Amino acid sequence: MNFSAIFVPELFGTMMLTLLGCGVVANASLPGTKGNGGGFLMVNFGWGLAVFAGVFVAISSGAHINPAVTIGLIANGAEEFADGVPVSAANTLIYILAQMVGALLGAVFCWLAYKTHFDADSDGATKLGVFSTGPAIRSYGWNVVTEVIGTFVLVFVVISFGFAGEPATAIGSPLAVGLLVVGIGASLGGPTGYAINPARDLGPRIAHALLPIKGKGSSDWSYAWVPVVGPLIGGIIGGLAAAAIFV
Amino acid sequence: MNFSAIFVPELFGTMMLTLLGCGVVANASLPGTKGNGGGFLMVNFGWGLAVFAGVFVAISSGAHINPAVTIGLIANGAEEFADGVPVSAANTLIYILAQMVGALLGAVFCWLAYKTHFDADSDGATKLGVFSTGPAIRSYGWNVVTEVIGTFVLVFVVISFGFAGEPATAIGSPLAVGLLVVGIGASLGGPTGYAINPARDLGPRIAHALLPIKGKGSSDWSYAWVPVVGPLIGGIIGGLAAAAIFV
Amino acid sequence: MNFSAIFVPELFGTMMLTLLGCGVVANASLPGTKGNGGGFLMVNFGWGLAVFAGVFVAISSGAHINPAVTIGLIANGAEEFADGVPVSAANTLIYILAQMVGALLGAVFCWLAYKTHFDADSDGATKLGVFSTGPAIRSYGWNVVTEVIGTFVLVFVVISFGFAGEPATAIGSPLAVGLLVVGIGASLGGPTGYAINPARDLGPRIAHALLPIKGKGSSDWSYAWVPVVGPLIGGIIGGLAAAAIFV
Amino acid sequence: MNFSAIFVPELFGTMMLTLLGCGVVANASLPGTKGNGGGFLMVNFGWGLAVFAGVFVAISSGAHINPAVTIGLIANGAEEFADGVPVSAANTLIYILAQMVGALLGAVFCWLAYKTHFDADSDGATKLGVFSTGPAIRSYGWNVVTEVIGTFVLVFVVISFGFAGEPATAIGSPLAVGLLVVGIGASLGGPTGYAINPARDLGPRIAHALLPIKGKGSSDWSYAWVPVVGPLIGGIIGGLAAAAIFV
Repeated sequence: MNFSAIFVPELFGTMMLTLLGCGVVANASLPGTKGNGGGFLMVNFGWGLAVFAGVFVAISSGAHINPAVTIGLIANGAEEFADGVPVSAANTLIYILAQMVGALLGAVFCWLAYKTHFDADSDGATKLGVFSTGPAIRSYGWNVVTEVIGTFVLVFVVISFGFAGEPATAIGSPLAVGLLVVGIGASLGGPTGYAINPARDLGPRIAHALLPIKGKGSSDWSYAWVPVVGPLIGGIIGGLAAAAIFV
Repeated sequence: MNFSAIFVPELFGTMMLTLLGCGVVANASLPGTKGNGGGFLMVNFGWGLAVFAGVFVAISSGAHINPAVTIGLIANGAEEFADGVPVSAANTLIYILAQMVGALLGAVFCWLAYKTHFDADSDGATKLGVFSTGPAIRSYGWNVVTEVIGTFVLVFVVISFGFAGEPATAIGSPLAVGLLVVGIGASLGGPTGYAINPARDLGPRIAHALLPIKGKGSSDWSYAWVPVVGPLIGGIIGGLAAAAIFV
Repeated sequence: MNFSAIFVPELFGTMMLTLLGCGVVANASLPGTKGNGGGFLMVNFGWGLAVFAGVFVAISSGAHINPAVTIGLIANGAEEFADGVPVSAANTLIYILAQMVGALLGAVFCWLAYKTHFDADSDGATKLGVFSTGPAIRSYGWNVVTEVIGTFVLVFVVISFGFAGEPATAIGSPLAVGLLVVGIGASLGGPTGYAINPARDLGPRIAHALLPIKGKGSSDWSYAWVPVVGPLIGGIIGGLAAAAIFV
Repeated sequence: MNFSAIFVPELFGTMMLTLLGCGVVANASLPGTKGNGGGFLMVNFGWGLAVFAGVFVAISSGAHINPAVTIGLIANGAEEFADGVPVSAANTLIYILAQMVGALLGAVFCWLAYKTHFDADSDGATKLGVFSTGPAIRSYGWNVVTEVIGTFVLVFVVISFGFAGEPATAIGSPLAVGLLVVGIGASLGGPTGYAINPARDLGPRIAHALLPIKGKGSSDWSYAWVPVVGPLIGGIIGGLAAAAIFV
């Protein structure tokens, strides 16, 4: 039975991801914080190091912490999700469930860490922006394209790591994925804020809808499908492309 | 007798931590420095690389350089604080004493390095801010919550490093902890300035109280318990959670 | 027959390079993006991590992803372009062709990712700047000098990596090259925007000329030879110098 | 005869250091560059990665690229400057001579790379600032103190690297030293611009005096002794302290 061997590390890894990732957006954008106006590169490093921390925590389950990675590995034809964890429909559901719960919980803790700043006056879009992504220019079709391309890069390059030679070191994978996400954010985050992970976006959006956030506005459900569908498509393309190219 | 085997590296490691860490705040905030207005990300890298340097210096004592880590390891059920150093009440005291003395001395050297800029006109809160953390919005309860969450992440993730596989390399641990602290600062430093270490905050605050700093104001002792109590609680929770999850 | 063993990884590696590299310029400079005004250091990290990703993808072909590296290795007297890939005129052409096609395709995907922002109003020079480099102060001779020096550093230091000892780790080479490019950009990118790679500049410039970019201006062909000739000269000097110095 | 085995790598390593290091200051401060106003953190990364590149190039001679390191190793009681290179008065002179010549040449190439921007109007102090350090607040005594503390950290922590365990990897030492210098710059660079290396400051200052730089002002020889004497004292203290502490 793989349930807890997958569920627990994926949940805590994804919780670290959104706690630290949503946290850096809170710091950069909520009123009165010490990092207010800290800039997009600070946000990129915040999210990249959130991945870095999450991967360390979830290393025993293969550190997907992202449904697009889980689905991308299936598309890639992988036989195992992690050492000793076979690819199967049941395991896929456990991964995604854990990622969703973890992402939601991380956003809750982020809200607690920044409670006094959420209580201060700011508009609803700023508060939602801490939890979930939104488009700089709303255009559902092109927003999906951007998320597809960003997630393609993530999954394609992450799979390439396994072909880059030995010996691996403990810090190697977390650092490589973390830096890759710093780069994807800086380079492809401009139009949509780079969800590139359905759980990272949908989990915190649910948290936003449920939590008693002072002065909160809409959870923007009309956009919510974009950072789910785009990353899943991108992950599948990334997995297929990697299967064709890396041998 | 473990005294000098613990005391000397912990003292020098924690001294590096606050010398470089307080230094980057001085550079970013004191009048006339070359890095004035350098931004929150510069402060995050400064503190993260201060940890990086401190861990290298204190590697032989396990590089706690933080009472929350020492206490967190006890809560975690560790048998040793470092190779050959058993967990015991006496050793715990040696660690914490060394960390406090080191943190205080590092702040003194920071003051010397920035002496001409401390002598220039600036308000007392700016000068205190070089030494110790303070809340962006004063709210003792929520400030404690923020420090608990930040230190939980620190201790929980640091313990996870040990489960991330072999072989370790010399640079691995210092780099991993340093980058983690860059990330915690960027992501969770907004409300309280991320003490996440009782010695890092209390040692320099004592230095602030004792040193003849020109135009200094209050050492803000009413806040001083927050960055001690919060990190200790967070470290204990982190150690307990890691014991439950990483096996 | 080495064709696909060279062509495929070099194409995809160079595609990653310009997709992410052009992307960070788009994010920093096109109107309405979330990273608009993100600063030169963000651009430096974007390009450096673009190299990091590209090198991982192209590791099996030696990860040149740059004609100046391919030519520099010939000048260096290398016997192989990568494990099992002999230096030959035919292989040189395959490398450069793959790099050009990949660089062009990466720029196309960058345009798609930022389509709504290219459609917004901005001047033609800003739009071209996403694709190709241009001089801060136009002076063909000195612009060539700057590109020669930057590419000399790239090729000379990259070849030095091979003499820095064992064991190598999977992340070692991509990280070293990526960080080196962050540094070259920050330090030598001021006058010309650091092409330091003929394919990185010419491929996207061709894409700019061919794509139906809204409101695009000139592709500035009068400058196009500078970021081709300068890097090739710099790569040759770097390869020769490395042959003389590293033994 | 060790002459060329020391002289060549030290010269080229130190040349990389000042070419890239002075370059990032040129980019941040000279008029019209693409990185103008890029901020102190960009300068910190530029210098840190300049060290990173320089250490790779000079790895065979132990990569001192800094007289304060060479002198610090003598104070530390080291028997060898590098594998197979015994500590001796003659070798010490070869190291320092190579460092001085390399630092001077790197500054010359920096001037060539930024020639059009040096030709543009800016004040003499800005132009000198590309080559050499100067104090934010002139106070020779305290300026020396700052340089002593910064160089103490550099030499003390660099020597600690050797006690941090095995196995080392090729990228380990250059990365560790490079990141350390990013940190020292961010944290202790505020008052004097962190020479922390006599050759890095004096070599480019001589270049400034000799080169026909348009509109150049004084080379500020009255300050030139500070970034020589301060780093040498700091290096000696760092070497002695490391000998006492690391065993």
